[in-house]
Amino acid sequence: MKKLLNDIRAVVPEMLEGLAMLHPGIALLQGHDVALRADVEALKARGEVALVCGGGSGHEPAHAGYVGPGMLTAAVAGEVFTSPSTDAVLEAIEAVAGPGGVLLIVKNYTGDRLNFGLAAEIARSRGHAVEMVVVDDDAALAAGGAHAGRRGIAGTVLVHKVAGAAAARGESLAQVRRAALDAIASLASMGVALGACTVPAAGGPGFQLGPREVELGLGIHGEAGARRVPLQGADALVRSLLDTLLADRALRSGERVALLVNNLGGTPAQELAIVARAAIARLHAMGLRVERAWCGTFLTALEMPGVSLSLMRLNDGRLAALDAPTTAPAWPAAH
Amino acid sequence: MKKLLNDIRAVVPEMLEGLAMLHPGIALLQGHDVALRADVEALKARGEVALVCGGGSGHEPAHAGYVGPGMLTAAVAGEVFTSPSTDAVLEAIEAVAGPGGVLLIVKNYTGDRLNFGLAAEIARSRGHAVEMVVVDDDAALAAGGAHAGRRGIAGTVLVHKVAGAAAARGESLAQVRRAALDAIASLASMGVALGACTVPAAGGPGFQLGPREVELGLGIHGEAGARRVPLQGADALVRSLLDTLLADRALRSGERVALLVNNLGGTPAQELAIVARAAIARLHAMGLRVERAWCGTFLTALEMPGVSLSLMRLNDGRLAALDAPTTAPAWPAAH
Repeated sequence: MKKLLNDIRAVVPEMLEGLAMLHPGIALLQGHDVALRADVEALKARGEVALVCGGGSGHEPAHAGYVGPGMLTAAVAGEVFTSPSTDAVLEAIEAVAGPGGVLLIVKNYTGDRLNFGLAAEIARSRGHAVEMVVVDDDAALAAGGAHAGRRGIAGTVLVHKVAGAAAARGESLAQVRRAALDAIASLASMGVALGACTVPAAGGPGFQLGPREVELGLGIHGEAGARRVPLQGADALVRSLLDTLLADRALRSGERVALLVNNLGGTPAQELAIVARAAIARLHAMGLRVERAWCGTFLTALEMPGVSLSLMRLNDGRLAALDAPTTAPAWPAAH
Repeated sequence: MKKLLNDIRAVVPEMLEGLAMLHPGIALLQGHDVALRADVEALKARGEVALVCGGGSGHEPAHAGYVGPGMLTAAVAGEVFTSPSTDAVLEAIEAVAGPGGVLLIVKNYTGDRLNFGLAAEIARSRGHAVEMVVVDDDAALAAGGAHAGRRGIAGTVLVHKVAGAAAARGESLAQVRRAALDAIASLASMGVALGACTVPAAGGPGFQLGPREVELGLGIHGEAGARRVPLQGADALVRSLLDTLLADRALRSGERVALLVNNLGGTPAQELAIVARAAIARLHAMGLRVERAWCGTFLTALEMPGVSLSLMRLNDGRLAALDAPTTAPAWPAAH
């Protein structure tokens, strides 16, 4: 295993320290792997709803990179590909909870649902207003089967943006929760992986693909996808992904969408641009109106080579929320 | 070779098309692999100096991603790791040349110097005011030896920013050239690679490193570096790089610097943050004042795993230029 790190036990705290050193708007919660807005007390005083996300690490810049005005209030980081503890989530809730209440945004994994859910219950018993939404944007496994259901993947970042804009506008906890649920219901994502990634504590890749084999719908922790297929051209792979996404949300010609082209970690920027070209061209050809498109590194699986595509069905409200200002470091500049 | 592309002969035009589809401020020059500002005619009418960079492709987002107000006017893209032709550079110059003149920013490689230099001469013979500066920020080989001298690597992006700010302020060609030369003289970069990258047309990696071996000072096309060393902790590797950079520019305690932590292509965001932490902490410990620090994907070698660090000695002018507004898509948002 070749990685730029010091101690496999210190990967998460050192990564968070680096982020906080780079971005003065991000503070760390003493004694916990939690990143939070440096101005969190002002937010509480204004009665704004606080947004907390988190999960296993290894998906950087998610989620700590989305902490900032207009997006998350705090992000809880577990060990690599491991849910944070109930205690850690509870500490984050306690740190950000004010009169506006707290919305937890959780990706659909058993450990995260359990730990965030328990923390929410305990926080409620202590008098905090806490709600939780679960993001399940992965359309790869939507057709059913012996699995835990749709997973939460890169589209989660768009949920942060929509809910964050609602919170920043001063909406109530119920309204922010509704905005997040609407965003989730409008969202579908799917990835294609060209290879595996290596969890630092494991020391070797999590699975093997053949030299001319790729996996469609592979999970962001290396969970099995929809199917393994021979390596194809970018246009053909993008078409397969988009066909699934459009069917998943019954998106039809004439509808407005936002597109997120996401690097799973190890994909060169050159290939990302070729994928973005393929995706936008294909959506145009299908008659969809691509109102916004972003291409970059949003939610990763360590150094996994591959991409995911996310589509969000737009209405005026969601488009305005996606366009709303934020200074969260990992959200692209407004141009 | 596993890559997300369609046709190895179409990599560069498809990549540029993707960029232009993502960013309406970027246009493509018909019939050439040249990205330029969509508002170039307005810039010419105002008499602003136009900035043109370029070189072989494979370093994305460099250089087309830096096309925009406050940075480059145009970027000329050669085949992967191959200098663009004299003709292509000349077409770019002709497309952007107005009464303010044109500054070419060229990385120090023989082919680029030759082709940009010839294009500049021809353009001058046609009556255009054209100057050229050469960026040679790679400190790895500064100690001398049987090589072509210091190469141009990731620090080039900071030269774009400083020169672009001068041009946007309405400075003359001589003044913009002077700002670029001052930036180059203030700059040092060095990288560490954990492995190779694969040029699409070659189909296999350009070199081999042992399973526990890394190369310090490796070039962005896989050229030999300063030395191969055993894999070490991120802190130790960063210390080696910074020692070379500080010595190269005689940077001493109390001085002000900007730091660029650059992904060579395949490095996960988690490791980048750990490297950024190490670099900022080490610079602080050495008594330097880190006024600005950026961490991300700025100038790559396809999917090469590894990072480079760039340091720029700051004065008030260069700091203001780095802080000046730009909407070039690959420059990070101002937060």
